[in-house]
Amino acid sequence: MYVVGHKIPDSDSICGAIALAYLKNQIGEAATAARLGELSPETAFILDKFGFEAPELKLSYAGENVYIVDHSEVTQAPDDIAQATIVGIVDHHKLGDLTTSTPLECWIRPVGCSNTIIKMMYDFYNVEIPKNIAGIMMCAILSDTVIFKSPTCTTADIKCVEALAEIAGIEDFKALGMEMFKVKSAVLGTPARDLVMRDFKDFNMNGNLVGIGQLEVIDLSVFDEIRADLEADIVKLKAEGNRHSVFLLLTDIMKEGSQILIASDDESLIERAYGVTPVEGKAWLDGVLSRKKQVVPPLQDAFA
Amino acid sequence: MYVVGHKIPDSDSICGAIALAYLKNQIGEAATAARLGELSPETAFILDKFGFEAPELKLSYAGENVYIVDHSEVTQAPDDIAQATIVGIVDHHKLGDLTTSTPLECWIRPVGCSNTIIKMMYDFYNVEIPKNIAGIMMCAILSDTVIFKSPTCTTADIKCVEALAEIAGIEDFKALGMEMFKVKSAVLGTPARDLVMRDFKDFNMNGNLVGIGQLEVIDLSVFDEIRADLEADIVKLKAEGNRHSVFLLLTDIMKEGSQILIASDDESLIERAYGVTPVEGKAWLDGVLSRKKQVVPPLQDAFA
Ligand SMILES: [Mn+2]
Ligand SMILES: [Mn+2]
Repeated sequence: MYVVGHKIPDSDSICGAIALAYLKNQIGEAATAARLGELSPETAFILDKFGFEAPELKLSYAGENVYIVDHSEVTQAPDDIAQATIVGIVDHHKLGDLTTSTPLECWIRPVGCSNTIIKMMYDFYNVEIPKNIAGIMMCAILSDTVIFKSPTCTTADIKCVEALAEIAGIEDFKALGMEMFKVKSAVLGTPARDLVMRDFKDFNMNGNLVGIGQLEVIDLSVFDEIRADLEADIVKLKAEGNRHSVFLLLTDIMKEGSQILIASDDESLIERAYGVTPVEGKAWLDGVLSRKKQVVPPLQDAFA
Repeated sequence: MYVVGHKIPDSDSICGAIALAYLKNQIGEAATAARLGELSPETAFILDKFGFEAPELKLSYAGENVYIVDHSEVTQAPDDIAQATIVGIVDHHKLGDLTTSTPLECWIRPVGCSNTIIKMMYDFYNVEIPKNIAGIMMCAILSDTVIFKSPTCTTADIKCVEALAEIAGIEDFKALGMEMFKVKSAVLGTPARDLVMRDFKDFNMNGNLVGIGQLEVIDLSVFDEIRADLEADIVKLKAEGNRHSVFLLLTDIMKEGSQILIASDDESLIERAYGVTPVEGKAWLDGVLSRKKQVVPPLQDAFA
């Protein structure tokens, strides 16, 4: 069995694949962690900190058993997922369009991070979490919940981080979280396309392909020199992928809001979805930190 | 929140809705059990035995929160499910085509019965199961697993029945299971259409609508007088519903196999799916007890 997260993997996808593969092996089911793309600087920082190698880069899964982490969407799955057998899904997003022809297990909960659910799985199977695995799970939760600031964060996530920090022997987990987000904020010198794609997800919205990227930083001023390049790049990306829209969220985790950069066949969607009028292809979405909870659902409703 | 199973509800759907609604209320989430159709004689027997009324018959769920039990298929959900918010799914089948626009919880496991998973939920939330609820949960598992004979039955189901029997104070649960299947075997005097629809599910197979009914009895001889009526009725049902195929499984739980009655635009599917050649629109499928595990997956592959 391969355990693999979504395309353009984030820390939740990578750390979750490692943590779940370890658990499966402990309960007698042979499993290998894999990934569908390059590590982000944040994820590389986490793995380095706790002494892990990157999981195997593997793009094709035809004929294999696959356990999916952190999504249930065809657009985010391996291209040949239809030729694989999905044996399980652990996720914390809306229910997507993956289907199977055989029974499977799904551990899906409305919490802030897949790793919070993987901790529940360790508890269910009564398996001890090794110190270094607790460390990467904790970091994934701090990343997905924006150090508990995201509206997606639940008390289950907070309790889980506290328990994992104890196992990992980390005294000040918030300081470690800020260190992570500083790594994430170092955007200068990186090509615009790499930044747009760093945390990018495609969605099928009422038959339209919609790509939404997100960059979470400590201060939006890091984008002042490169915003124009990012705007030009999402217009290109939209055309290349035959997408209806590409949006890029520039999220300020301290001010707790996001500037959305817009490339769309129908800009009025933004007004309908978020009640703000874009000016020159941009708008400020106050209080918006979560793509999953605050950006995708209203947009999906606007498309419906 | 309403807790509701599939169309043409079986005992798992009804008993599961009652058991899960009770659990949700115990953990502070107001929930009402509902149903999408009439009770089968087997389910009526179970509810009567343990002193329950039938859950509320409710067909429309627009604007409501809904917790789905025992499936994840659009064809088996309320007609207006797209106007409802699915807050959770508990199921033990293949992953179907229901999707959501918001995060939810899914407790899906490859076990023999949804009620086995609902027992896991009681354990997770540390809620005591009342005696009469343990009784109906136990009966649902005995029904879905054909008293442990079905290949879908797992050790989790068996352990769960043993624990529930103890709570319910039932000493000989296998005898109660046989009593249930005797109720199910009383088919004479019932109109053909009612029998065909008693445990009938529609599936979307590669874009084709395929209906599969199943009748589980202790001895197939009960069908000798009515088999011709059943054969004529599935031909009618296929035409009425614009279906590609309608199949009816006459399952002999003692001989452990099923006779399949066939009304299809393409009878060669049966040969491709099960390796047997139909004679006069019928075939014997030796060892086949489970629609979910032994009938649907090979058929889905034959359609693909
Ligand atoms: Mn995640
Ligand atoms: Mn069931």
